[in-house]
Amino acid sequence: MPKINKLLVANRGEIALRIMRTAKEMGIATVAVYSEADRLSPHVQFADEAICLGPPPSNQSYLLGEEIIRFCKELQVDAIHPGYGFLSENADFARKVTDAGIIFVGPSPESIEVMGSKLAAKQAVSKYDIPLVPGTEEAISDIAAAKKKAAEIGYPILIKASAGGGGKGMRIVESESEFEEQMQRAVSEAQSAFGDGAVFIEKFITSPRHIEIQVLGDQQGNIVYLFERECSIQRRHQKVIEEAPSAVVTPEMRKAMGESAVGVAKACRYYGAGTVEFIVDDQLNFYFLEMNTRLQVEHPVTEMITGKDLVREQILIAEGKPLSFSQEDLKIHGHSVEVRVYAEDPKNNFLPDIGRLKTYRRPQGPGIRVDDGFEEGMDIPIYYDPMIAKLITHGENRQDAIDRMIRAIHEYRITGIETTLDFCRFALQHEAFVSGQFDTKFVERYFTPDKLDPVFTTQEKELLAALAVAFFEQEDQRINPKKPLSPTPNTNWKNRLL
Amino acid sequence: MPKINKLLVANRGEIALRIMRTAKEMGIATVAVYSEADRLSPHVQFADEAICLGPPPSNQSYLLGEEIIRFCKELQVDAIHPGYGFLSENADFARKVTDAGIIFVGPSPESIEVMGSKLAAKQAVSKYDIPLVPGTEEAISDIAAAKKKAAEIGYPILIKASAGGGGKGMRIVESESEFEEQMQRAVSEAQSAFGDGAVFIEKFITSPRHIEIQVLGDQQGNIVYLFERECSIQRRHQKVIEEAPSAVVTPEMRKAMGESAVGVAKACRYYGAGTVEFIVDDQLNFYFLEMNTRLQVEHPVTEMITGKDLVREQILIAEGKPLSFSQEDLKIHGHSVEVRVYAEDPKNNFLPDIGRLKTYRRPQGPGIRVDDGFEEGMDIPIYYDPMIAKLITHGENRQDAIDRMIRAIHEYRITGIETTLDFCRFALQHEAFVSGQFDTKFVERYFTPDKLDPVFTTQEKELLAALAVAFFEQEDQRINPKKPLSPTPNTNWKNRLL
Repeated sequence: MPKINKLLVANRGEIALRIMRTAKEMGIATVAVYSEADRLSPHVQFADEAICLGPPPSNQSYLLGEEIIRFCKELQVDAIHPGYGFLSENADFARKVTDAGIIFVGPSPESIEVMGSKLAAKQAVSKYDIPLVPGTEEAISDIAAAKKKAAEIGYPILIKASAGGGGKGMRIVESESEFEEQMQRAVSEAQSAFGDGAVFIEKFITSPRHIEIQVLGDQQGNIVYLFERECSIQRRHQKVIEEAPSAVVTPEMRKAMGESAVGVAKACRYYGAGTVEFIVDDQLNFYFLEMNTRLQVEHPVTEMITGKDLVREQILIAEGKPLSFSQEDLKIHGHSVEVRVYAEDPKNNFLPDIGRLKTYRRPQGPGIRVDDGFEEGMDIPIYYDPMIAKLITHGENRQDAIDRMIRAIHEYRITGIETTLDFCRFALQHEAFVSGQFDTKFVERYFTPDKLDPVFTTQEKELLAALAVAFFEQEDQRINPKKPLSPTPNTNWKNRLL
Repeated sequence: MPKINKLLVANRGEIALRIMRTAKEMGIATVAVYSEADRLSPHVQFADEAICLGPPPSNQSYLLGEEIIRFCKELQVDAIHPGYGFLSENADFARKVTDAGIIFVGPSPESIEVMGSKLAAKQAVSKYDIPLVPGTEEAISDIAAAKKKAAEIGYPILIKASAGGGGKGMRIVESESEFEEQMQRAVSEAQSAFGDGAVFIEKFITSPRHIEIQVLGDQQGNIVYLFERECSIQRRHQKVIEEAPSAVVTPEMRKAMGESAVGVAKACRYYGAGTVEFIVDDQLNFYFLEMNTRLQVEHPVTEMITGKDLVREQILIAEGKPLSFSQEDLKIHGHSVEVRVYAEDPKNNFLPDIGRLKTYRRPQGPGIRVDDGFEEGMDIPIYYDPMIAKLITHGENRQDAIDRMIRAIHEYRITGIETTLDFCRFALQHEAFVSGQFDTKFVERYFTPDKLDPVFTTQEKELLAALAVAFFEQEDQRINPKKPLSPTPNTNWKNRLL
């Protein structure tokens, strides 16, 4: 059985650092790759060796798969971990890695390929009794037949690109009268975005939740599920708050979803860590959406409630070791919430707010985990996803984990750029979130910028801070007249304003 | 039942901050107290209100119990949490707090009083079948009778001050010939240190481990144990590495020790969080040593393996709420290790190395918790215990928690002062620690300063760093000749040296 002694992480930022931390704990040497924009990044500092791939953007650096393989040979690297994004779901890259005699820490190229096509995935799982959103099982060619099928399913329906992802190439059709026009648009959008005009149609779920199941499979064919992650709180079709377990999933539903997810994994002979995404309607019916054949951004909430290190499991599986635990060994301990700290301005439609991290102080203490890839004083580069950090909390139950998250957000000090933290605080305290009664439309339904705490200009803040200091100075003297004047009585007030 | 709305934390540094974090999560407003030396401390920043008590040393600030009570009335504070040290085990203070109509977050003054005297504690537990180190049960008055008893027990024996703590007033007597002289010394030492010359004698355990049991009791009389903490790794009679569970405690021994600890707590009608300390010999016999009637420095390892927030439980108990769980509900999840990061020089007999935290970067990521009370750029004051931080890890099993700790120590960046981190790394990798076969004499037995990684002068470091940069620059060019020269190839080498 091969032993991994040296691992190259073909990624950047927080996920590269997170993977290398586990490798370090396992006694595995690490190699970082980086673009010129990331040369001061903590993931480069942490690694035992580091290779500059080239300048940004990614097609001149992080996406240079063949270069990366060449460096692996040069540096006698045994294995490549692709992280998420970049080359992680590129079957061709996975195949070239394997052909070069290097271990790919992920599933087989065949699994990636099948799950990379929504239609191929639907066909693969068809023998496994997996609930699917009512719709066509094959790409549509005949408009008349498609129209008939749409009528059977009932409007509203959704037209989706088979090769798509991230909402691209999707059209909602409210009624039959607009069907033909929307269909033509979807095909041409899919053609230009993915080079593949194949589309299919399915029932449009009006109040959907996004709930996903983490699976782990070994190369011996054992597959287990590590319960669900609730990922319904999104902005611009991208997740921003996740939690495990979900507030609405019952033990019976969890078992049914878990077993469906294992069925999906079996259908593509999956090994490694993977995520089976489901859409859940307001009656809590769940339908298979797609499988992500890689480590997920939000994997930490699963680690917090199961005690398993998913990167460690990925590495052990890649070495060919069988899973060291069974489904029965897995239990849920407490509750975990993750918020994604993006360099975005919630007051400006969550548009990226790139700049320098003037102040950067992380929260600490019980039940807090921060996965990030920046230090104070660094710039958030414009070339990549503007995520600064993932802030994760764990508590004995859901409310404890939420309360801890609100405390942690209170402690987080970021200046120089706007972030999603204030929005996340708003969301976590909103009654829809607290009660668990929400769907993917939370932001459209409940959020407007005026819901955030009032924001002052720098000048106003300075004025208020000066007033606060003077006021509490007086107050301190009143209470304790014999003490000398202190420069920072009740500093928290000042701190809050600045 | 009283509800605590505003809590004053009569303490400083990491423990004040740690307590306020939980209070914040529970929606309780917080009041900090501080000495002039601590005016920039994070615990002052975190609190909703803050009061300067006066200048250091502590008898002019943190020990001013009556002043603190007066401020509580002024600021309408409902409750005081004393933390550890300072006023936490002062029965007189606890009584004055209660008399003033303020809730003391801790046990009753009577419990503190009984357990504050080693002899009173021994007498109190005598009905509860608690194993005690063979010895006298009462203070010695008659030298001849004491000598006879010592002969019965068998040398070596230990003479201990009844009012003592921290090793003061203790004498080891190897043989009968030195008994009288050592006894006289012990009495006079105890008289001058504690104002109380009472001493007792007991069997001296030559290869002792220090293992303690965490208990929680409510005001209704329910008491549970939250398993053990192994605290045998000490320097200068003070703990420096702790873990839970212990590597040598079997499930049967855990149950027996836990039930003994509950017996001790019952003997003094204990409520709140408390710790029952045991000495364990090389045959794994355990004997009751003393009870600490407060939150313990090393409480986080228990929180990591049980999922309970001990400060939250303390506050709920102080409000009069019954425990929300039973002994059967408590389970051990994984393993946790804590190292104490002291501003001390292990190469210079662990003497304090006070100064400025020039660089201060905490480790992050999965399974890491840092409880501290400083930020980069701050000075470690000379007036207090020189602890900078507690670094805690959690893993699926003991080896995982140790590996994670070594990774975390690797990530911790502290410059400007010497710390215990390098020593802790040495200890965690030592075969005696790894195998679990160690006792409180670990440092004397195995540690000498040459065991630490070689240390370079600043000049040598700069030279090495420059060489490393030049070398890897070349190496990078060799591997990837078409890439431009990068300022930081293989920066980790540079980083390690600086």
